[in-house]
Amino acid sequence: MTRVLVTGATGFIGRNVLQPLTDAGFEVHAVARTSGTADVRWHQADLLDPLARRALVSTVRPTHLLHLAWCTEHGSFWADATNLEWAAASLDLVAAFRSAGGRRLVVAGSCAEYDWGTVRDEPLDESTSCRPATLYGQAKLSTQELVSAWARQTGLSQAWAVLFFLFGPFEHQGRVVPYVINTLLDERQVDLRSGSQICDFLPVWEAGRALAALLGSDVQGRVNIGSGTGTRLADMAGRVSRLLGRPDLGSGSQALHPVVASPPLIADIARLRKEVGFTPDDDLDSALASTISWWVSTRAARGA
Amino acid sequence: MTRVLVTGATGFIGRNVLQPLTDAGFEVHAVARTSGTADVRWHQADLLDPLARRALVSTVRPTHLLHLAWCTEHGSFWADATNLEWAAASLDLVAAFRSAGGRRLVVAGSCAEYDWGTVRDEPLDESTSCRPATLYGQAKLSTQELVSAWARQTGLSQAWAVLFFLFGPFEHQGRVVPYVINTLLDERQVDLRSGSQICDFLPVWEAGRALAALLGSDVQGRVNIGSGTGTRLADMAGRVSRLLGRPDLGSGSQALHPVVASPPLIADIARLRKEVGFTPDDDLDSALASTISWWVSTRAARGA
Repeated sequence: MTRVLVTGATGFIGRNVLQPLTDAGFEVHAVARTSGTADVRWHQADLLDPLARRALVSTVRPTHLLHLAWCTEHGSFWADATNLEWAAASLDLVAAFRSAGGRRLVVAGSCAEYDWGTVRDEPLDESTSCRPATLYGQAKLSTQELVSAWARQTGLSQAWAVLFFLFGPFEHQGRVVPYVINTLLDERQVDLRSGSQICDFLPVWEAGRALAALLGSDVQGRVNIGSGTGTRLADMAGRVSRLLGRPDLGSGSQALHPVVASPPLIADIARLRKEVGFTPDDDLDSALASTISWWVSTRAARGA
Repeated sequence: MTRVLVTGATGFIGRNVLQPLTDAGFEVHAVARTSGTADVRWHQADLLDPLARRALVSTVRPTHLLHLAWCTEHGSFWADATNLEWAAASLDLVAAFRSAGGRRLVVAGSCAEYDWGTVRDEPLDESTSCRPATLYGQAKLSTQELVSAWARQTGLSQAWAVLFFLFGPFEHQGRVVPYVINTLLDERQVDLRSGSQICDFLPVWEAGRALAALLGSDVQGRVNIGSGTGTRLADMAGRVSRLLGRPDLGSGSQALHPVVASPPLIADIARLRKEVGFTPDDDLDSALASTISWWVSTRAARGA
C-alpha cells in the first residue's frame, strides 16, 4: 500500500501531478490552504503552522511524500523572508514524515540552486556546482543538503527534483510565457529584456508526469526535470507569435522581463530518461498551442 | 542601547559568556529551559516551541542575538534527528529577530562543518572547504549558508563562530578532557583510541570572552574560535597526568574514545586576533589545572 501526501497540491505544479500519481496506483492525499477539485483525498492545512503540519502527518501517515509547497509569490519569492519559514517548515515536515514511518520523499528543488555565474555551453547535469544567487535558491539548497544528509543517515529514500522553466495553464501572468501570450492576444508588441537568454522550457503537465515517475522510482539524489532542449526567449516569443498569426509582434528588445541568468540554462536529463525511465514530450509548438488555448478560454471566461 | 539575547545560556559555553557580555556593557537577556544563577535577566523558554520562541523575541526585542542553543546530548548529537529541529528553529529565530529590529547576530558554528577528509598540515582558516561528515555538521552548515544569504540581503550584521575543541567546567563527563581527568582522579589508566589525533583545545572561558568580543565587533562571516595551537590527545593526557603527579597512568592506546577525524584540526585564528582584536590565553597547563580543580571540587561536593 503506497499512500502519498502531496503538498502545494493546488499550485501550478501540484495540480498537474495528482492524476499521474493516481494513475500510478498511489492513494493520493493532497494538502493545500484550500481544497482543490481533483478526485483525491483533500486536507486543508497551513504547512507553516507547526501544529497543523504535525497533525496532518499523523492523520495521513503517508508512505511517500511529494513536497511541492513553498513561497512562490511572483516577483517577491526570490528574496522573500518566507523562504526561511519554508526551509524550516520543510525540515520539520521531513522529520515528522520519517517519524511517522515515511519511506520515500521527493522535494521540488530548482535550477536556481546551480551556479549561474559560470558560462557553459553544455547542458547542466546534476553534478553542476551549486552557488545560488538568490535567497530562494539558497533556501532550497540548504534544505536539500540537510534533508539529503538526514535521508542518508536514516535510510530514507529521497530524490530532489531540480525543476527548470515550466509553463502551462495557471502560470502567473507576470511570468515570461504568459506575458508573451497575453501581450500577443492583446495585439501589443512583445518587449523582452533578455531575448537572447537560453532557457529549458518544459510544459508543466510533463513536469507533473515526471514527478510522479520519480516518486515511483527508487532513484536517489538530484534529478533534473526539464526538456533537455534550450530555447532562446526570443525564439519562444517568435513561436507564440507565429501560432497566433502575428509574427510582426513577436520580438522586441526593451526591458520588461528581468531574467537574471546569462549562461544557457539547459537541463541534462540523462538521469530522468535513463534512471527514472521518463522522457518528456518534446513538441514545444504543440505545448505552446495548448497553453495559448487555455489562456484564450480563461480570458473569455473572465470577459477579457 | 545594546540589548543581547543569549540562547543556551545555561549551557557549557553559554554560562561562560554572560559575564564578558555584561562587562562589555550589554544589557544581557539569557534564555534557557531553566533559569541560571548569573546576574542577568533570565527568560525561561523552550526554543523548539514556535510560539514561545516568537513571544520571547517580542518581549525582549534584542538588538543583538548570540545564538548558542542546539542539541548537544553527548554521544547522540552528531546524528540526532533534533538537528533538523534546531536548524528549523534557528532559521525561524533569526527571521523573528530581524523582524523585531535586530541588528547583529552571532551564531555558534562548529569545526565539524569543515572538510575533515582532506589531510592538511596547515591550520584551517575560514576559507577551508566545508564538507560535514555528520548530520550535526551539515545542520550547522546549512543553517549558516541560509542565515548568511538572509543577512546579506537584509543588511543584518552577522558572524558565524566556528568553535573548535573546548574544555572546562561543566563539560560532559563522556568527553575526552573530563574522561582523562576523571580517569586519573580515579587512579585508573587512561585509554585513548586516537592518541595521535591533533586537536585545537581552548578553555571554554576563553571561548566565552571571544564570543563576547565577536558580538561586540562588526566582523562579518565565519570566524574561527580556537587557540591556534594543535595538541595531540596523548599529549593532553600526558599534561593532565603530570599535573596530577601520575605520569605512569597518562597514556594508553586501546579503543575507548571515538574521535572520527584524522587530519590535524587546528584553528587558524588570524581573523579572531586581527579583525576581532581578541587573542586567547595560550597557557594550556594552567587551563588544565583550573579544570582539574573544578573536577576535584565537584567530585568532593558529590561525595565521590
